[in-house]
Amino acid sequence: MTIAVLGAGNSGLAMSAHLSQLGCDVNLWNRTRHNIEKLIRTKTIFCEGLKENSVRINLITDDIDEALKDVDIIMVTTPAYSFFDIGCLIAAKIKENVPIILNPGRTFGAMRLERIIKEHSSLNSVSIAETQTILYTCRKYDEDRVKVFSLKRDVRIASKKMETVNSILEKLPYEFRNRFEIEESLAKTTLSNVGMVLHCAPLLLNSGWTENRDNSYKYYYDGITPTIGAFIEKIDDERVSVAKRLGYDIETTKAWMERSYGIKGKTLYECIRNNEAYKKIDAPDSLDHRYITEDIPFGLVQIEKIGKLINVETRTITLVIDLAEQLFNADYRKAADWLDEDVVKEIRIM
Amino acid sequence: MTIAVLGAGNSGLAMSAHLSQLGCDVNLWNRTRHNIEKLIRTKTIFCEGLKENSVRINLITDDIDEALKDVDIIMVTTPAYSFFDIGCLIAAKIKENVPIILNPGRTFGAMRLERIIKEHSSLNSVSIAETQTILYTCRKYDEDRVKVFSLKRDVRIASKKMETVNSILEKLPYEFRNRFEIEESLAKTTLSNVGMVLHCAPLLLNSGWTENRDNSYKYYYDGITPTIGAFIEKIDDERVSVAKRLGYDIETTKAWMERSYGIKGKTLYECIRNNEAYKKIDAPDSLDHRYITEDIPFGLVQIEKIGKLINVETRTITLVIDLAEQLFNADYRKAADWLDEDVVKEIRIM
Repeated sequence: MTIAVLGAGNSGLAMSAHLSQLGCDVNLWNRTRHNIEKLIRTKTIFCEGLKENSVRINLITDDIDEALKDVDIIMVTTPAYSFFDIGCLIAAKIKENVPIILNPGRTFGAMRLERIIKEHSSLNSVSIAETQTILYTCRKYDEDRVKVFSLKRDVRIASKKMETVNSILEKLPYEFRNRFEIEESLAKTTLSNVGMVLHCAPLLLNSGWTENRDNSYKYYYDGITPTIGAFIEKIDDERVSVAKRLGYDIETTKAWMERSYGIKGKTLYECIRNNEAYKKIDAPDSLDHRYITEDIPFGLVQIEKIGKLINVETRTITLVIDLAEQLFNADYRKAADWLDEDVVKEIRIM
Repeated sequence: MTIAVLGAGNSGLAMSAHLSQLGCDVNLWNRTRHNIEKLIRTKTIFCEGLKENSVRINLITDDIDEALKDVDIIMVTTPAYSFFDIGCLIAAKIKENVPIILNPGRTFGAMRLERIIKEHSSLNSVSIAETQTILYTCRKYDEDRVKVFSLKRDVRIASKKMETVNSILEKLPYEFRNRFEIEESLAKTTLSNVGMVLHCAPLLLNSGWTENRDNSYKYYYDGITPTIGAFIEKIDDERVSVAKRLGYDIETTKAWMERSYGIKGKTLYECIRNNEAYKKIDAPDSLDHRYITEDIPFGLVQIEKIGKLINVETRTITLVIDLAEQLFNADYRKAADWLDEDVVKEIRIM
């Protein structure tokens, strides 16, 4: 069993070490060679947390052909903003029978990647699954060192071709695959990206604190106050409304947090305050962060665009995108240019 | 010389003590009796800062008839959101020849008050002047105690009837009136309210820090970062553009800060950083603060509405108002319902 892991960030390192420990041959690829120089020399990841050991990796490379050679599964662990580049890069090099799993897919990631690959290859069909969240709570703290704080359970996974998900999972080692739970449909994993709710507005509404060099704060615990908590519930309501109009009854972020962390709260704010796991999570020390650069274009922007296509108003989401675009002089909305009526039709019948 | 001072807040106390020291009889009125109980008993304000002494006040009252009896000038020191109530309250009780000075007028305050008074009285004419800012940098720290950190110089003052401003000033004690400088027109004092630029967006973009009970910060020094500084310059550009289309060449907030504080900076952010006077100014400890409740409805909302009436786009200002309305479930825009084409015509020919 050979698995390509694309991306040598936090979760790329954790997954490469984990799968190697479970007996797989892992080809770990990273676009920027500079960030894997040491790994290329040593082929070793030092893994802390659940199992403390040094793990030998089959192959470390920045050469995509080498990485994909004779693999059985391709694991993508990069942020959603890399999916376009990755799609272009691998389109002509992948085989129809080799499934791709996005860890996670964020919002409409699997569908977007499928389009990119079809546009850049002669493949008629490509098998792309996506997870709702990443399996690992982990942090890379050196080029070759990663600390895994926890392995999640019941990580939801789905694909447009739901009938293939089981056979994809069966290829993987038991100890790995039994962490996953098959979701009803890809629409549900993809509309259940709660990062866009928890990350974008709170970071923007703490812009000064985040950018201030002399002060740090705990992201959830200090940064999300009653007013901000109530505000992000409005964002969440809009996300759930869009899903509902598409025909899917998805969890609110509050319900997701209660289920995932076994806590209770009258409001989302109360759930966040009651979540012990959040107490120590540091805030980003810059506004140039995935909470903005990934979760706005590949979260809120996707929901806003689909909302427009199906006539569901998303006032608060629009406001947050506008604010980010004006603060950072960015055009995040181009990330939803690909979304059209055809995609809406596809989502409706998943 | 008898002067009514309306409002016993920071600047109401400072002004009452100051004018009393200079020999005026001051009738200090406050709407809420509860906040002046002690003052009513003792008729004494303890004043610290420039001159440390206890100052006897002629009259302290919550009775508006008593406060206005035989006065020569009416000084309004309340926030702009009180102007409507004050206008209704005093309309039928004031005399045509007794001028009113708004300290300060905020945006279009004098014109708004004039309308309110004319609607609620039989007066044909009322003389209302306004200042661009309050004369005192001061803080009330008990019901009867105020600390004056500094008296400003060159405080701009104007009225719709510019020819009357000099005679209004001449009524006042020399040491008081020589702090003021007559502005070219009321349009200039009123469009030069920089509070809306410096207060609204930075407080909103520090919502978490402000509402967090365990952390405090210096408003300008910690809270206004490069990203926020650049953002509020967009707001300022829109304010200056609206003034320009109305026919007035007004200072940018950067130019105002350079002139007022004798500093330099390439950007507004740099000016704020270079402003020693800002280093110690604490941030509000709540979002329910005049930086929002006064400066949004009686600053940004007025500029946005007039922008609409004269076809000047105010994208960033609109965004900030929308954000505040959604965060606080408020309708700030009703504060501009009074603004119409007639007001625009008046402003154009001031």
